[in-house]
Amino acid sequence: MAESTTYKVIGTRPIRHDGVDKVTGRAIYGADVQMAGLLHGKVLRSPHAHARIRSIDVSRALALPGVKAVVTSADLPPAEDRVIQLGEGGVNLKYLSNNILAGEKVLYKGHPVVAVAATNPHVAEEALELIRVDYEVLPPVLDVREAMKDNAPLLHENLKTKSLGQETDKVSNIATHTQFKLGDVEKGFREADVVIERDFTTATVHQGYIEPHNATAMWNPDGQLTIWESTQGAFTVQRQLAPVLGLPVSQIRVIPSEIGGGFGGKINLYLEPIAAVLSKKTGHPVKVLMNRAEVFESTGPTPGSYMRIKIGATKDGRLTSAQAHMAYEAGGYPGSPIGAGMMCIFTPYDIPNVLIDGFDVVVNKPKTAPYRAPGATNAAFASETVIDELCETLGMDPLQFRLRNGAKEGTRRADGPTHARIGYLETVQAALNSEHYRTPLEGPHVGRGVASGYWFNVGLQSSVSINVNADGTVTLVEGSTDIGGTRASIAMQAAEVLGLKAEEVRPIVADTAGVGYNDVTGGSRTTFASGYAAIEAAHDVIRQMTERAARLWKIEAQDVTCAEGIFRNKQDGGQSLAFKEVAAQLGRTGGPVVGRASVAPRGVGGAYATHIVDVQLDPETGKVTILRYTAIQDAGKAIHPSYVEGQMQGGAVQGVGWALNEEYFYNDQGVMSNASFLDYRMPTSLDLPMIDTIIVEVPNPGHPFGVRGVGEVPIVPPPAAIANAIYRAVGVRMHHLPMSPGRILAAIPAKG
Amino acid sequence: MAESTTYKVIGTRPIRHDGVDKVTGRAIYGADVQMAGLLHGKVLRSPHAHARIRSIDVSRALALPGVKAVVTSADLPPAEDRVIQLGEGGVNLKYLSNNILAGEKVLYKGHPVVAVAATNPHVAEEALELIRVDYEVLPPVLDVREAMKDNAPLLHENLKTKSLGQETDKVSNIATHTQFKLGDVEKGFREADVVIERDFTTATVHQGYIEPHNATAMWNPDGQLTIWESTQGAFTVQRQLAPVLGLPVSQIRVIPSEIGGGFGGKINLYLEPIAAVLSKKTGHPVKVLMNRAEVFESTGPTPGSYMRIKIGATKDGRLTSAQAHMAYEAGGYPGSPIGAGMMCIFTPYDIPNVLIDGFDVVVNKPKTAPYRAPGATNAAFASETVIDELCETLGMDPLQFRLRNGAKEGTRRADGPTHARIGYLETVQAALNSEHYRTPLEGPHVGRGVASGYWFNVGLQSSVSINVNADGTVTLVEGSTDIGGTRASIAMQAAEVLGLKAEEVRPIVADTAGVGYNDVTGGSRTTFASGYAAIEAAHDVIRQMTERAARLWKIEAQDVTCAEGIFRNKQDGGQSLAFKEVAAQLGRTGGPVVGRASVAPRGVGGAYATHIVDVQLDPETGKVTILRYTAIQDAGKAIHPSYVEGQMQGGAVQGVGWALNEEYFYNDQGVMSNASFLDYRMPTSLDLPMIDTIIVEVPNPGHPFGVRGVGEVPIVPPPAAIANAIYRAVGVRMHHLPMSPGRILAAIPAKG
Repeated sequence: MAESTTYKVIGTRPIRHDGVDKVTGRAIYGADVQMAGLLHGKVLRSPHAHARIRSIDVSRALALPGVKAVVTSADLPPAEDRVIQLGEGGVNLKYLSNNILAGEKVLYKGHPVVAVAATNPHVAEEALELIRVDYEVLPPVLDVREAMKDNAPLLHENLKTKSLGQETDKVSNIATHTQFKLGDVEKGFREADVVIERDFTTATVHQGYIEPHNATAMWNPDGQLTIWESTQGAFTVQRQLAPVLGLPVSQIRVIPSEIGGGFGGKINLYLEPIAAVLSKKTGHPVKVLMNRAEVFESTGPTPGSYMRIKIGATKDGRLTSAQAHMAYEAGGYPGSPIGAGMMCIFTPYDIPNVLIDGFDVVVNKPKTAPYRAPGATNAAFASETVIDELCETLGMDPLQFRLRNGAKEGTRRADGPTHARIGYLETVQAALNSEHYRTPLEGPHVGRGVASGYWFNVGLQSSVSINVNADGTVTLVEGSTDIGGTRASIAMQAAEVLGLKAEEVRPIVADTAGVGYNDVTGGSRTTFASGYAAIEAAHDVIRQMTERAARLWKIEAQDVTCAEGIFRNKQDGGQSLAFKEVAAQLGRTGGPVVGRASVAPRGVGGAYATHIVDVQLDPETGKVTILRYTAIQDAGKAIHPSYVEGQMQGGAVQGVGWALNEEYFYNDQGVMSNASFLDYRMPTSLDLPMIDTIIVEVPNPGHPFGVRGVGEVPIVPPPAAIANAIYRAVGVRMHHLPMSPGRILAAIPAKG
Repeated sequence: MAESTTYKVIGTRPIRHDGVDKVTGRAIYGADVQMAGLLHGKVLRSPHAHARIRSIDVSRALALPGVKAVVTSADLPPAEDRVIQLGEGGVNLKYLSNNILAGEKVLYKGHPVVAVAATNPHVAEEALELIRVDYEVLPPVLDVREAMKDNAPLLHENLKTKSLGQETDKVSNIATHTQFKLGDVEKGFREADVVIERDFTTATVHQGYIEPHNATAMWNPDGQLTIWESTQGAFTVQRQLAPVLGLPVSQIRVIPSEIGGGFGGKINLYLEPIAAVLSKKTGHPVKVLMNRAEVFESTGPTPGSYMRIKIGATKDGRLTSAQAHMAYEAGGYPGSPIGAGMMCIFTPYDIPNVLIDGFDVVVNKPKTAPYRAPGATNAAFASETVIDELCETLGMDPLQFRLRNGAKEGTRRADGPTHARIGYLETVQAALNSEHYRTPLEGPHVGRGVASGYWFNVGLQSSVSINVNADGTVTLVEGSTDIGGTRASIAMQAAEVLGLKAEEVRPIVADTAGVGYNDVTGGSRTTFASGYAAIEAAHDVIRQMTERAARLWKIEAQDVTCAEGIFRNKQDGGQSLAFKEVAAQLGRTGGPVVGRASVAPRGVGGAYATHIVDVQLDPETGKVTILRYTAIQDAGKAIHPSYVEGQMQGGAVQGVGWALNEEYFYNDQGVMSNASFLDYRMPTSLDLPMIDTIIVEVPNPGHPFGVRGVGEVPIVPPPAAIANAIYRAVGVRMHHLPMSPGRILAAIPAKG
C-alpha cells in the first residue's frame, strides 16, 4: 500500500461526529439505560480490609417488601483455583471471580460480599442494612515493602511465588518476581565515573473518570445474556464474563453506551456478573450503579510502588549501567502492571548494561486496574529523577544529555527487542528548540524541570465494516469504544482512502453482535489498529466500487483506476465517475457494497514524550504552582491534531495530579479516609496553566499513515519533570509521590 | 457453487432464535421505546372523505400548557408536483408528502392534517380538540367504477391519465391504464367452444396486523435524524424520508424494533416524518403511536376492485383465450397494485391469447399499501372462479383441467418473460394425490372447492456480515426485519455452509447504520435474497478460515480443504482442524474473521399454490363453515418447514377473511363505520379448522439451496377456492367479496 503523503483529510480538524450529542446532553451513557420491569441492584461491601467471612445471613433482607433477590459468590459457578486463558494471557479464575463477589475472605475495604435486587434503589439500599455478615477480622498489610516481609499477614494461603519463570513452593504475598537483563550491570557500574542510587515510592492513585461504573443485565430464560454498560471494551467484557458466569462467549451480548472516561479503569469486570446473576434469579433486567465512594474503594486504582534505582555514567556523559528493583502493589489479587513498568523504565536510553528486577505483590487494597501507561509513570518518576541528578552532577544540560544517550532505531531494549524507527530524539530536539526552553525563567523559588517518557503501545485486533450509502456517503461500523475522539480519527483514515470528506463517513460504534471482534480501547491502540482496519476496509470498498464502475462502462475492472474518489476509464481518458455517481448505481450493478477488514497489526510504533515544566514554590506553605507546561510528543502522524493535543494535555494534567496531590489515604485498618472528590484532590482548571503542546511526527513504518498511538505516554513524564523543577526551585530532591505541600515543607528544612 | 443436496441444518426445525424473547414478553417493539425528555405526538385527522382546507387555526392548541409544538404540511419542505426516483421506481413527491400531512385538500376520512407534541399523550389529545380546521366539504367518490366516470368528482385537478405508456391531456381519476397482450384474443375466443364472461368486485380489506404503527424521532441539532420504529424496511423508511424531509439519506438512521405484523402495511411512511418535524421543532425526542381506528382509517388497506373476466376453452378442455378488464382503487393517491394483479391473473395457465387491461384509479379512501401478494388475491378470485365454471361446463375435474393447461418451465407469461423451472403442476398433482382430495365429502349443504394462485416473488438487494466468535460460533448481522422467522431461515443457510448448528449462528437484525443496504422484508424475498447473502458471506468466512488453517499448518491455502466445518490438510490426510479450533486461533493468525456479502440476485423463482377447501353452508343464516382446508405450495426448498407451514397457514387464514367477512364498510359520506376489531370481522381460531399443509419442493435454480420465497402466494387461492366450494354446496356462483352471510342469503333465492 503506497499512501500519498499529502493528505486531504488527515491532519485537519473536523468537528467530531458525536460532538453535538455530547454537548447537547443527548448522548446515552450507561446510567441512562431504561427498560420495562427494570430492577435496581446494590452491593454490600466489606467494612474490613482483611477478614475471613464466617457466615452471611440474608433472611431479613429477603423478607423486606420490594426485595427480589440476593446473591453471594455461591450464586456464581465454582471459582476454581486454576489458570484460564483470556485473550493473550492467563488469569486465575478464582481471583477473577472472587474479586466480583468475595469467597472465603475479603481482601480490601469495599470488597463486594452480597448484592441485592429490588424494585427501586432505595429499597435495595435499605436491604443492605438488614444483611448480617460475620467476619473474623485479620490484620491488613497495606504497603508493598511490608507485604514482602516474611512475617507479613498472608492474603492468600496458597499463593506460591513464581520466580524468574519458575514455580516455587514459597508461599508469600509476592506473586511473581521477574527480571530483564542486558549485558553485565556490575561491569557497567565499574566503568562509570558517577553512580547514583536512590529509593522512591509512589502512592495509590485513581483514574478519576467522571462517570461511575454501571451495568444493566438481562439474562433471558434461553440463556442469552445481554449487558448494557459503559466499558472500554465490549468484547473484553464478553470474554471475561464467559468464564465467570460459565456461559459460552456467544451467549453474551455486550452493548456499549457512551463512556464518561475510563483511562484503563473500565476494562475489568465489576458489576456485570452481579447484575447478570441478579437478572437470572429474578427474570428481570437489573441495573447496578456505583457511587463515588464505591468507585474509589472497589475499582482498580493504579498501584502504589517502591523502587530502588541505580544509574552510572562516565564523566563525559555516557550511560554505562542501570539497575532497578521495582515492587508494585497488585491490590488484593495478583496482577499489577509491573511488567509494563519494567518494559518502560530505562527504555528512553541506550544503556549497554541493564538489570531490572520486578515484584508483583498483593496487599489489602482494591485489585489494581490499568491506568494510562500502567506502571510507566511510577517507573519514570524514579528513573528520570536519577537521570536528572546525574546530569546535574556531570554539569550537563539534561536535554543535551538525552540527545547523547537517547534511544533510536536499532537501540536494544532491556526486554529484548530492538527499536524500530522511533521519534524520541526528535522530541528532545523539539524541546531544545522550543520557545519555552529558550526563554529564561525568573523569579523567586522558581525552577524548570524536564523529563521524558516511553510507552510501547499495543496493536491487538480490530475489525471495521464500511457500508456505502446511495448518496455516496458511507457508514463505518467499528467496535472500539470512543473515549477521546476515535470515531473521528478512524473515520478520517477511511475518508482519506475513499476520497470523501470526514463528515461523509459516519462512524458507528457497534455492540459485540454487530461487528467483528475488537480488542479494548486501551494501549493507545485504537487510532492505530482500528484505523488500520478502516484503511483496509476502505480499500476493500474501492476494489468493489472499481468493479462497479467497470460494469457501468462495460469494461474490465483492470481498466479502471481510482484516485481521490474519482474512477477513470483507462481506455477513454475523458470518462470518469465520482464515488457518489457509482454509489447511486449499486442496485443495478450487483447490489450493495460493503467493505470489511480485520487486522492484528504487528508494526506497533512506540511512543515517546518529553515534557518541560516551570514551577514556583511557596516556601511558607509548600504549595507548588505550575507556571508553564509544554508537552512534546511523537505522534507518528497526527490524524486529528486537536485530539492528539487533547490527549497530550489530559495526560499531562493527570500526571500533575500524581505529582502534587493525588493519593489514597489509608488509616491503620486499611480504610480509605478520602473516598470522595472533595477529599481526593484532583487538579482542576483553576490549578493549571494552559498545557502547551508540540506534536512531532516521525511516521511509524508499521502503519499506512504512520500512526503510533498517543493516548498514554503523556502521563509518564510529569511527576519526574515536576520533581526536577522543584529541585531547581528549592534545591530538594523529592523521592515520594505525591509531592504534597506537607512533604515539601518537611523536605525543605531537612535540606536546610 | 455446488451445494450438497443432503442437508444437515436445512429442512430441520430448530427453535427460532428470537423465540424466548417473544414468548416471555421481553422483545422490544416500537411502542416500548423510552428515552429521557420524550414528548408524545398525536395527529388530528380529517373528518371528511373529500374536502378543501380553507384554513387551520392552531393558536388555542399552542396555548394549552404542556403543548410544545404543532406541525402542518407547511412544516415539511415544499411538496413539489414532480416525480422523484425512489428505489427501483418513481414516485410523485407531492403525493408522498401530502399523504403524510394534507396539503390543500384532504382526500379521505382520517387524512392527517395537523400534529401536536406535548408532554404526555393526554395533553396532546386535548390539544387536538382545540384546533379549528375550516373545510370546504366536497362530494366523495368511493367506488372504482363511479370514480372512472367522466362526471365523477375529481380528487386531483391536474392528474392526467397515463395511457398505454403515453402521457395524455385527459384529467380524470384514472392515473394509469396499462395493458398486457399476448397473441390475438379475439381469434382465441373464436377458436373456443365455451366462453364464459363474468363481473367481479372485491372489498377494501386491511392487513390487520396486531401492532399499530409507531415512530419515535430525534432530530439532533447537527441535522442527524434517528427514527426508532417497527417497520418492514428500515432502509426503505430511510430512503422515503430523505426526500420528504429534504435530508440526505446519510443523515437519517432508522433503528428497527421487533414488529407485530406487517403483511406489506408497514412499508409506507405515516408517522415518521411527523415525529421528525415535531422533534426538530421541539429539540426533544417525540413518539407518536396510532390507535386502531387510525390504523384502519389512515394506513394502507388493500384496494377494492372491479374486474370483468372472459375465458374461452375448447370442448376437450384446452384454454384458447383469456381477457381481463381490471380496475383497482388506489385510495387518495395513485399507486394501486394493479400491475402485480395483471402479472398474476392468468399466469398459472398456458394460454396462447391474452389481453389484460388494468386501471389505477384514485378514490376517497386511504392510500392503499401492499398487502401480501398485493393485487393477486383480487385477480385470482375472479379468474379462478371463471376457470372453475369452465371446468364445470366442460365436465372436467378442476385439478385435471389444471394439469392439462398449467404453466410450466418455458410457458410464456402475458407480461413477457417465460417461466423458469416452476412447481405449479407439482402442487396440482400433490392436491390430486392428497388424502383430502381423495376423501369423499358428505353431508347437507357441503361443497369442496379448489383454486390455484401465483405470485412472482422479488429479489432486490440484501447484505449480510458474519463475525466469527472465539468459541467457534458466529454472529450473523442482517438488515431484514424478521416477521415470520427469517432470523432462523437466514441463519440456517449460513449454518449449513459453515458446518455449524443453527443455534451456533446468532442472527442479529441491525439498523441502517450497522449493516449494508437491505431492501424491505416483503415480496417473499427475505429467505431467498438475504439467505443468499448469508450463504455468500458464509463462503467468504470459509475462504478466510481456510487461509487461517493453512497458516497454522504453515502450508498454502490451496492445500487445505473444508467440508462440513472440518478443515483438512491435503498434504497430510490425518491432519484436521474443526471450525471451532481454527476460530480459537484467530488472534495469532491475523486477527478476527468477518465474512460479508451483498447480493442483488436475478434468479427469482415464482411461487405457486393450490388450495382445497370443504365448506358447509347454513341455509338459514348464510353462514359458511370451513370444514377442512389443505394448502399445497411449492417452496422450492423449505429451509425451516415449520415457518413455511406457518406462512401457508397464515396466508390461507387471511384469505378466508377476505372471502367471508372482511370489508371496509363506508357510509355515503365516505366514513368507515367499522373501524375497530370488534366490527371489522377477522377470522379467529374459533372460526377455523386446522389448516393442513403440503409442502412441494421443486428447487429454484436461481438460489444455491433452491429457495423460492413462500410468504405471499398462500393468500391468493382462498377466496376463489371458497367461492367454488360454496357453489358446490348450494349451487350459486358468488362474484363479490366478501361472501358474507347476507350476500349468500341474497344469492340463494336469486338462484332459486
